[in-house]
Amino acid sequence: MKKYQQLAQQIIDQIALGAWLAGDKLPSLREQVALSGMSFMTVSHAYQMLESQGVIVARPQSGYYVASRPATRSAIAPVKVTRDEAVDINTYIFDVLQASADSTVVPFGSAFPDPRLFPLQQLNRSLATVSKTATAMSVIENLPPGNEALRHAIARRYAQHGMQVSPDEIVITAGALEALNLSLQAVTEPGDWVIVENPCFYGALQALERLRLKALSVATDPQNGIDLVALKQALNDYPVKACWLMTNAQNPLGVTLSQQKKQQLVELLQQHNVTLIEDDVYSELYYGRERPLPARAYDAQGITLHCSSFSKCLVAGFRIGWVAAGKHARRIQQLQLMSTLSASSPMQLALVDYLATKRYDTHLRKLRRILAERKQQTLQALHQLFPAEVKIHHSESGYFVWVELPEYMDASVLSEQAIAHKISIAPGKMFTTGGAWHNYFRLNASWALGEREQHAVETLANLIKNQMKE
Amino acid sequence: MKKYQQLAQQIIDQIALGAWLAGDKLPSLREQVALSGMSFMTVSHAYQMLESQGVIVARPQSGYYVASRPATRSAIAPVKVTRDEAVDINTYIFDVLQASADSTVVPFGSAFPDPRLFPLQQLNRSLATVSKTATAMSVIENLPPGNEALRHAIARRYAQHGMQVSPDEIVITAGALEALNLSLQAVTEPGDWVIVENPCFYGALQALERLRLKALSVATDPQNGIDLVALKQALNDYPVKACWLMTNAQNPLGVTLSQQKKQQLVELLQQHNVTLIEDDVYSELYYGRERPLPARAYDAQGITLHCSSFSKCLVAGFRIGWVAAGKHARRIQQLQLMSTLSASSPMQLALVDYLATKRYDTHLRKLRRILAERKQQTLQALHQLFPAEVKIHHSESGYFVWVELPEYMDASVLSEQAIAHKISIAPGKMFTTGGAWHNYFRLNASWALGEREQHAVETLANLIKNQMKE
Repeated sequence: MKKYQQLAQQIIDQIALGAWLAGDKLPSLREQVALSGMSFMTVSHAYQMLESQGVIVARPQSGYYVASRPATRSAIAPVKVTRDEAVDINTYIFDVLQASADSTVVPFGSAFPDPRLFPLQQLNRSLATVSKTATAMSVIENLPPGNEALRHAIARRYAQHGMQVSPDEIVITAGALEALNLSLQAVTEPGDWVIVENPCFYGALQALERLRLKALSVATDPQNGIDLVALKQALNDYPVKACWLMTNAQNPLGVTLSQQKKQQLVELLQQHNVTLIEDDVYSELYYGRERPLPARAYDAQGITLHCSSFSKCLVAGFRIGWVAAGKHARRIQQLQLMSTLSASSPMQLALVDYLATKRYDTHLRKLRRILAERKQQTLQALHQLFPAEVKIHHSESGYFVWVELPEYMDASVLSEQAIAHKISIAPGKMFTTGGAWHNYFRLNASWALGEREQHAVETLANLIKNQMKE
Repeated sequence: MKKYQQLAQQIIDQIALGAWLAGDKLPSLREQVALSGMSFMTVSHAYQMLESQGVIVARPQSGYYVASRPATRSAIAPVKVTRDEAVDINTYIFDVLQASADSTVVPFGSAFPDPRLFPLQQLNRSLATVSKTATAMSVIENLPPGNEALRHAIARRYAQHGMQVSPDEIVITAGALEALNLSLQAVTEPGDWVIVENPCFYGALQALERLRLKALSVATDPQNGIDLVALKQALNDYPVKACWLMTNAQNPLGVTLSQQKKQQLVELLQQHNVTLIEDDVYSELYYGRERPLPARAYDAQGITLHCSSFSKCLVAGFRIGWVAAGKHARRIQQLQLMSTLSASSPMQLALVDYLATKRYDTHLRKLRRILAERKQQTLQALHQLFPAEVKIHHSESGYFVWVELPEYMDASVLSEQAIAHKISIAPGKMFTTGGAWHNYFRLNASWALGEREQHAVETLANLIKNQMKE
């Protein structure tokens, strides 16, 4: 993020947190230079940007004021996730996912990283160990909350990053998706309002639909993540029960919230006594020097249910995830006993064995290095081959690239054309309800850019160019 | 079932199916003797029993008539599964299940058979094979509907029993419980009426609660299973959408419906266009000469979603089940992708490997023999040690014994006392809502009757005797 963007965001956040109210006079350009230590150019640029966004207004001969009707108001929208509409979108998502599962298709639309990056040999060794050591009674030992050694191993990893999570509050689930679903169910009743991001992981919208919850979507952008001003407004205007967010490598945007922003987010939710359901499945996939902490790390009050899994960074097929559920751990176990009973027992044991080998961190370092390289290569290819009108958003984490076509274009049409050429992409339509993000798509940059993939990027570029000509 | 009971049930079923209407004159005793080929004593006994149940009335000098207000009317009850009530019962169930998972407790309350009866060594060999052969891409190959070879193997087992089930309609799930939940969700909308048995597997009531469905409980008894007269009445009186039943080794009663009754059940549901969600997890655990077919075998119209798993007859910890879902297969895959994504990939592969060894049938034969023996031993011990006032219901399938205490006693109190002595039982309260079945409990007879178990039966007997004295 550039300096002027940082300053603008800081001011937006200050407004969100009530430091500046509508109609308040902001520090003048000169005062802001003194306050921020930034150059006049930078400050001026930031104010211009805020003005263009309608966040502040310039009054001649007077200065800059916080807009009386925040432009961000439109950044909140109650979203329809009624059954009829949702069925259509779910069928659509299902079709896109099915297409990505076809091995003859270049899976740019896939949500999973290239599984060849996972330590198959070592995992298989752990599986072989389990096949020698599992006892008849291990099923019972692995019932909810799940294998004790595994919960300890996960708690130790939290501790490694300076977080206090007790093994007793961890519930092992069949993947993070189950953890998220159970968490949402544990803290809501049908008809409750729940905040989701816009765009967001489609699993969140589907879960809300299934549990008959009302969705409130809050604007989220590829640079800064969720709009805290809009979030605050939503919390003020609606009796919100929970907030389902991704704070690291958000799906589909890829954005990771700054540490400061995570703190502000937690404070805001604490003030409103709203539960945070934090989907943190990409937390291990950062490419900067330090591992970004989840919002949970800043939550001393225990409003956060932190959900994650091994599916995106170690092995997808085992279907093992977890939730650090705090006081909700017991309720979540009850809900699990009613739905899937428990996560698979040999899979839990194999992970215990694998984690004990201490190879996990070595694997993760290698995984991050390769994913960062591949993303770089993919970005290069996209920049080189896609028309200049196409904007490419990306971040320092995860393996998704968020591609913005010109406004008049339709990524769903592109998706259909691409499938005919054996290429899948994930159109923006999958990550929202209503017509938003129609000209965006998510591209999975975890694949080695071999001849087939290179050719696929070229084909996509040609399809885009053809659509532009029409 | 004794002959007179058979005849009585046959007449009840004929009434249910409309062969005899209220007020109709039944064949006289003499005519019935000629019709049925049974003795005068038997027929007379059957008519007396029906009269005492209020199903028929005797008019002096005239004969026997179908009761004008069927006594079975009370055998249908809309059941409250509201959140508040359900949370209590769910907590109760959770506590009982947790107690059974404690290895220091004699698990008479457990729903699982003794896991030491499972072919651990061979399963581990299959796991070892998977650990050598699994590829990075196998995750994708095992996404819903699940591993193709596994679906074929399951379809072949259906074929073995003369049933036509295509691999294409099978969806592999994380255990039968997920299959049942997804099936119910696929065919209902919140507010719909669904028929369950009374008593029934608690998972059914929990699923109804979660999906905000209205439960209609239909009387089911340990001798004859579901009351078809009551079922017919329920179908006439309520706009029922689905019916969740166990036709083989019903949990908790253990009863298996006769072939004829399964046919009548299917016909009834077909007439009313009601979906049958058939929970058939104990189908392999029969002790007669022939494998009882599920209701699905008699359903040519495709109204049945047949759910089963390997958890009760091969391995519980793998968490692999399935549904033969007919036209609903696609919808169920969609719902699965939204909740748990898929069943674990190595577990699916291990089962494919195990089933290919052709050892499954050998294992099942041995399992049936041992389970039948153990049940016999347990029944002996119960008959010997329990007071004569206690009735013990059992059947030719499964490993559950349904124990009936005198009406004035409370099995929940017994359960609490038993837990203090490190013995778990499953009180009737778990299998219903409202106060019914308070004096019943389910006892798991799959355990070898060693010293510890023998002692536990003695302790239970003493606790019962003490409660009787009070």
